[in-house]
Amino acid sequence: MKKVLLIGATGTLGSAVAEVLAAHHTVLRAGRRSGELQVDLTDGASVERLFASVGKVDAIVSAAGQVHFGPVPQMTAEQFALGLNDKLLGQVRLALVGQHHLNDGGSITLTSGILSDEPIPHGANATSVNAAVEGFVRGAAIELPRGIRINAVSPTVLSESMDSYGPFFPGFEPVPARRAALAYQRSVDGAQTGRVYRVW
Amino acid sequence: MKKVLLIGATGTLGSAVAEVLAAHHTVLRAGRRSGELQVDLTDGASVERLFASVGKVDAIVSAAGQVHFGPVPQMTAEQFALGLNDKLLGQVRLALVGQHHLNDGGSITLTSGILSDEPIPHGANATSVNAAVEGFVRGAAIELPRGIRINAVSPTVLSESMDSYGPFFPGFEPVPARRAALAYQRSVDGAQTGRVYRVW
Repeated sequence: MKKVLLIGATGTLGSAVAEVLAAHHTVLRAGRRSGELQVDLTDGASVERLFASVGKVDAIVSAAGQVHFGPVPQMTAEQFALGLNDKLLGQVRLALVGQHHLNDGGSITLTSGILSDEPIPHGANATSVNAAVEGFVRGAAIELPRGIRINAVSPTVLSESMDSYGPFFPGFEPVPARRAALAYQRSVDGAQTGRVYRVW
Repeated sequence: MKKVLLIGATGTLGSAVAEVLAAHHTVLRAGRRSGELQVDLTDGASVERLFASVGKVDAIVSAAGQVHFGPVPQMTAEQFALGLNDKLLGQVRLALVGQHHLNDGGSITLTSGILSDEPIPHGANATSVNAAVEGFVRGAAIELPRGIRINAVSPTVLSESMDSYGPFFPGFEPVPARRAALAYQRSVDGAQTGRVYRVW
């Protein structure tokens, strides 16, 4: 039984991750505006307050982060920066601060996404951000002390999101959020580090 | 004979790229503080001014961008953001602004680096940033209009830099800057898009 801090716990993916992990562990649910705990990953002080309130944990899991969707010919650097600051730097901040609040042998699991490998129109920011999350995981895995592991989960589009996102993913085979959620348990309860668990 | 705008033209890599390209093309050399033209890629107004002064070009090449080197256990989100804003967002800004100043069939060539695929201690920021540059290239390549292409060159450590960087790259086989520079010519004068040219 581990103490798991889950960020993005009330989203479509995060609520499925919470359900899967809660069958085995104590899950502390955090969200930007909902959940037991509130945190804004773009705000360092907010992340510090979160860890001060929960104390040491065995696993940190993020299913949070927004990117900019829009066409490259009209994209501005400011729009591109939105995804950098939110899904990329937000999750990196969670990991960099969180490493100091993990018990020995703990783990960090971040979320990238299929667009890292399979670009779609309007998705250049997501492709770049997801690739950067995976790069951070590769780089950090070889340096984290005290047996701390770090991985990413890269889900494809979720069945539950097909009504809103389906038109952007022609021919992509969606997976139920619950199936994507299993990969987070593989990361939390497995032994690997520096891995990207693709759920496609 | 193409009109090529080269950013980072006075660096170790950039000066070799300038020499290789100048054998075939007209090269406009820009640097942050030196070169015929000055530009700060972290400043949108500076990038706009650069293109206003050079007019339409056939190729945009970047050999510019700094990242943060330092250990993950002591890294802060603010340090990580340095590389995001400089080597990643700076090059993305160059591409997003520059696309509107390219002739039909023009090209954009950005620089990532071997750390994207081969992490080293103290290099997590570089691994993430380089992966993000490559992700942006993959994503943008499928959307750029008017036959505009975009690629990245991923060089390993340069022979010329071994005195300063060698200790960080144990067992890595360095390449001369001139050999890395050839990949930029492959991108400028080739026909591929969305490619990462690895020079290892």
